Amino acid sequence: MATVKLWSDAEIAKVPRLAAVFDDIRATRKSDFINNFWRALANQPELLERTWAGVKQVMIAPGTLDPLTKELLYIAVSTINSCSYCIHSHTSAARAKGLTEEQHAEFLAVISMAAHTNSIANALQIPVDPEFLVS
Amino acid sequence: MATVKLWSDAEIAKVPRLAAVFDDIRATRKSDFINNFWRALANQPELLERTWAGVKQVMIAPGTLDPLTKELLYIAVSTINSCSYCIHSHTSAARAKGLTEEQHAEFLAVISMAAHTNSIANALQIPVDPEFLVS
Amino acid sequence: MATVKLWSDAEIAKVPRLAAVFDDIRATRKSDFINNFWRALANQPELLERTWAGVKQVMIAPGTLDPLTKELLYIAVSTINSCSYCIHSHTSAARAKGLTEEQHAEFLAVISMAAHTNSIANALQIPVDPEFLVS
Amino acid sequence: MATVKLWSDAEIAKVPRLAAVFDDIRATRKSDFINNFWRALANQPELLERTWAGVKQVMIAPGTLDPLTKELLYIAVSTINSCSYCIHSHTSAARAKGLTEEQHAEFLAVISMAAHTNSIANALQIPVDPEFLVS
Amino acid sequence: MATVKLWSDAEIAKVPRLAAVFDDIRATRKSDFINNFWRALANQPELLERTWAGVKQVMIAPGTLDPLTKELLYIAVSTINSCSYCIHSHTSAARAKGLTEEQHAEFLAVISMAAHTNSIANALQIPVDPEFLVS
Amino acid sequence: MATVKLWSDAEIAKVPRLAAVFDDIRATRKSDFINNFWRALANQPELLERTWAGVKQVMIAPGTLDPLTKELLYIAVSTINSCSYCIHSHTSAARAKGLTEEQHAEFLAVISMAAHTNSIANALQIPVDPEFLVS
Repeated sequence: MATVKLWSDAEIAKVPRLAAVFDDIRATRKSDFINNFWRALANQPELLERTWAGVKQVMIAPGTLDPLTKELLYIAVSTINSCSYCIHSHTSAARAKGLTEEQHAEFLAVISMAAHTNSIANALQIPVDPEFLVS
Repeated sequence: MATVKLWSDAEIAKVPRLAAVFDDIRATRKSDFINNFWRALANQPELLERTWAGVKQVMIAPGTLDPLTKELLYIAVSTINSCSYCIHSHTSAARAKGLTEEQHAEFLAVISMAAHTNSIANALQIPVDPEFLVS
Repeated sequence: MATVKLWSDAEIAKVPRLAAVFDDIRATRKSDFINNFWRALANQPELLERTWAGVKQVMIAPGTLDPLTKELLYIAVSTINSCSYCIHSHTSAARAKGLTEEQHAEFLAVISMAAHTNSIANALQIPVDPEFLVS
Repeated sequence: MATVKLWSDAEIAKVPRLAAVFDDIRATRKSDFINNFWRALANQPELLERTWAGVKQVMIAPGTLDPLTKELLYIAVSTINSCSYCIHSHTSAARAKGLTEEQHAEFLAVISMAAHTNSIANALQIPVDPEFLVS
Repeated sequence: MATVKLWSDAEIAKVPRLAAVFDDIRATRKSDFINNFWRALANQPELLERTWAGVKQVMIAPGTLDPLTKELLYIAVSTINSCSYCIHSHTSAARAKGLTEEQHAEFLAVISMAAHTNSIANALQIPVDPEFLVS
Repeated sequence: MATVKLWSDAEIAKVPRLAAVFDDIRATRKSDFINNFWRALANQPELLERTWAGVKQVMIAPGTLDPLTKELLYIAVSTINSCSYCIHSHTSAARAKGLTEEQHAEFLAVISMAAHTNSIANALQIPVDPEFLVS
């Protein structure tokens, strides 16, 4: 289905630059499982390295937003961008980080309300209230 | 700029069905300010009522996600849908609910990372790993 | 604001290939007014000719969908694509073709309901029921 | 494939709040068939109730737009939002409401023309003509 | 899976108007293979003819952009529009026109960088610098 | 208009971490002008550094795609994402890299053709031909 080759562990093992990233993914996530996204990105070492460095920094390093909130934001963006792969992988990640059915349901209520009002505000081309502008 | 009339307070006051919604918005938000979105929606009473009831239920009634997280999800959806009005109004709302510059920056890091990986996963049509499927 | 030059009537008059299209737009629409979209497209004669031929065929020639329905479909697509120019121009066109406030309101109710359910169906990656497939 | 459980009739029957909605869907549509969208939404009773009430009000209750026009608007929005599930379900619904092959073809001609001009108007950032503004 | 019938060669052969387009596709591309897109469009002769004429003019006739660049632009648009069919068909076309793995990787780096900065610029509603405006 | 503060040169000068990035932007581009995008990103040093490093690597470092092709891909993505700021800034950048009116026109023809066929392929949910799959 993919438009590029998905790299197997055996193939990764032969290319030190790629193996280094895969090793770091496994060590950072404390899991042997590496999903297809990284196996597809292995076709371009530079993009693989840069993307993994970004994900590690943004999604895994501690910050001011908690990990579950970040996953929900990820799913929200992926849903509106209609990225089936990303919706699946990050819903799975959110579950692993403790997402309850109740939170998932509330998440759906929020994003569908946003999609609803977005379409109205865009269709009506409503002017921004001066009160909302940063002076 | 709007493609429909924006209703003034004086005009709203003459239509009891609309006035009832505007009164409830003011009472619920404990503020006299009513933004243009509702003034534009006043052209259709049924949609105004249904949309306000939904926003009140989803964004204001207490739930399992905290109010600031909901606002961030709203901005994420509005950003990908490119709804200028909604980005402005909900960033303003998020600030009113305590959004710090640090959280805003981290929010941007997450949504831009999602947009980055969404485009790669879509361009490569990466197949969903069986591990992500709900059996 | 445009990223290209908008051609004036005087400039168009000097280029027969462009003047022919502008004449046909005026004759077909029975109006002297030519909106900025065509003045911007004048930078590329081939695309101008092809786009106008398509618009004339699809939006103006009689067919099985009535002209107002076509304009509403146009606004729906333009809203989701967040094309401010197109929303303005086709809402104006819809009004010229008799769009009532009541129809506009109902239109908004439909597209915002679709946006609402689209986000849910995408977020949940709901499998298509076999009943919906064309055998 | 779904990221949540799809509820069977037997499971729905055990939860009165859900059963009430499913009964109303069947009664309103005069059909025993309930599609996966509602079976997925059953995970959140409040969102299920609110969404069904909205769909019933907007898509089924009589209004100023005819039922087939509403379905075409729904498909237009779903297409641009790239919602595979919604495109399938509402194309099926449109057929049930009498959509002919000729109308479907004309619908495609309109939405593809809109997508074509949307991309040009956005790429050129064409300024809105003053003639299109609601004074 | 399609929401319309896909026409077989035997069915096309019976309709001269359709057969003429299919013959021209085969002759122009110097290949017997005709992909599902055209078999689906055969349901509407006018749209089939107009779309093929456009594709032939834009993608195949010589111009100032080279054929591979055009295919990459096509994949970029299709990726952001989340059109799975188009991503597959134009990645295949790009490969046939000589796309190397290195170019594909660089293409991914560019579009994912654009998606990244798009989300930031939209979320921040950054005002356009006067330096970028065409006077 | 921005939802965050745009940093002036005087403010940047007081924060060494930010000044280092701005100095590198000026040195790399051989120009004193720094556009609003970077002035807005200055609110988050980590995201500013990571984004600039990415842009420098992807858009400026020599690769297998020429600089103008990269800019056109950037505009294509920005157009479909409806990012007004990015369309303006990268059309300006493309002009600086030699974009001719003829190439711009051909670019528009390609992206509008892609948008046209994307909407049809999505609306019809056309199944991917086996010939397009990477075995």
